Amino acid sequence: MLEKRPYILITNDDGITAKGLRLLIEAAKKFGDVLVVAPDAPQSAKSHSITQAIPIKIDKVIETENYAEYSTSGTPVDCVKVAIHEISPNRKFDLILSGINHGANTSVSVLYSGTMAAAIEGAMHEIKSVGFSVDNHDPSADFKDVVPYLENIISEFIEKELPRGVCLNVNFPDVTKVKIKGIVSVKGADGVWGEKFVKANDPHKRNFVWITGKLTNNEEGNIETDIYQIEQGYATVTPIKLDFNYLNYLNELSEWEFNKM
Amino acid sequence: MLEKRPYILITNDDGITAKGLRLLIEAAKKFGDVLVVAPDAPQSAKSHSITQAIPIKIDKVIETENYAEYSTSGTPVDCVKVAIHEISPNRKFDLILSGINHGANTSVSVLYSGTMAAAIEGAMHEIKSVGFSVDNHDPSADFKDVVPYLENIISEFIEKELPRGVCLNVNFPDVTKVKIKGIVSVKGADGVWGEKFVKANDPHKRNFVWITGKLTNNEEGNIETDIYQIEQGYATVTPIKLDFNYLNYLNELSEWEFNKM
Repeated sequence: MLEKRPYILITNDDGITAKGLRLLIEAAKKFGDVLVVAPDAPQSAKSHSITQAIPIKIDKVIETENYAEYSTSGTPVDCVKVAIHEISPNRKFDLILSGINHGANTSVSVLYSGTMAAAIEGAMHEIKSVGFSVDNHDPSADFKDVVPYLENIISEFIEKELPRGVCLNVNFPDVTKVKIKGIVSVKGADGVWGEKFVKANDPHKRNFVWITGKLTNNEEGNIETDIYQIEQGYATVTPIKLDFNYLNYLNELSEWEFNKM
Repeated sequence: MLEKRPYILITNDDGITAKGLRLLIEAAKKFGDVLVVAPDAPQSAKSHSITQAIPIKIDKVIETENYAEYSTSGTPVDCVKVAIHEISPNRKFDLILSGINHGANTSVSVLYSGTMAAAIEGAMHEIKSVGFSVDNHDPSADFKDVVPYLENIISEFIEKELPRGVCLNVNFPDVTKVKIKGIVSVKGADGVWGEKFVKANDPHKRNFVWITGKLTNNEEGNIETDIYQIEQGYATVTPIKLDFNYLNYLNELSEWEFNKM
């Protein structure tokens, strides 16, 4: 149990005006002092990218004793880095909450998601971090039915510890259509995004395409996955750690003949 | 052993004019038919991001029987997706080669790197993929001393198979300063990027910052890591798979009291 009020960083990838972000801010304010550092424009599907080729603009929007809000021209990961190192270098965050994303971040979507990248970046800085998403892409959708669950999760999250480098991925079903049945802990389904490109209508006749895609679930019917449980009306919580080394293959790789000069 | 000439996709994140890309193209042409689909401008540190909010421009640069070159306004991952689904939907790639990146992609840099994201995306599409990087950021640096090693790796890579979803990360030492001692198979070191933001000089007095950073190696002195071996003058090969589920914590997480309504 924390003795002082928790210091909570909030970010997202839909941008500082997003409805999901506003709902998360209102929930978080009940639990602690809140700093919001969010992109000044939508930054969906930005994954773990950072802004390196140009500088990042930082604007202070609001500052009161227990609440402040900044927007940046950067990505969600930039926002986390800016918050930790530039805006609040002298007070360590107890929690990072990212979202609430308009659109699910189940299965392999975790790798493309800016919302989850922010949470993963937080975990890499050894701050307890969680990303929230709702299975509805409509920016005007009303997510108010997630609030009691959201508050339960934040409350538990304040009490508990996570292993080093691990963050949580919370996905809610489409609460504009279904009533949440409860929260279950499951893994993210194995899947892959298959793309279809649609020709854009360029009056200048250049070759522009829009990316569209469909997630193929390689674990269709597996009840122990996020996609399955969300389809049943449950919210899901998944422990996430981006482990990049595939150690199982290291011995075999050492037998490849790379050095045959 | 492949019966036909291998069909090789080449991309990078430094952009279509980068010297490292040009060296990789020349090496790859000896082994098969080559399609280059690369960003029309630098896309460093773009991680696994895709271009979703605006359409992607595709320009054909060169097309001959065994060689073609396209540039796109997208990220490295966009380039891979565009190549597979839009430019070459009827001929499957045997290999994807990404790079040669100007700058090392050791340790946790894999997560930020566009070069490695392209290779990871290739592996997710079940295509043998490898990213190449040199420990020198200078865009004008001459990487010619990597060529014999590069050719050995491509040759081995054509012969061998990798487990599903796994790609390779190859890092060369700074060949403008040291002679490569050989190639070793090691894991990526555990590390974290710590940032420092430097105020940009904006004549309009707005608050802009440049991101700068330093990688902290949490495995200093561990000879079985990429950073250590590159410092010794070896090139490193690391098997990479972005595993996002942290299953070790799933049981414990199921005991959290999320459902205490």
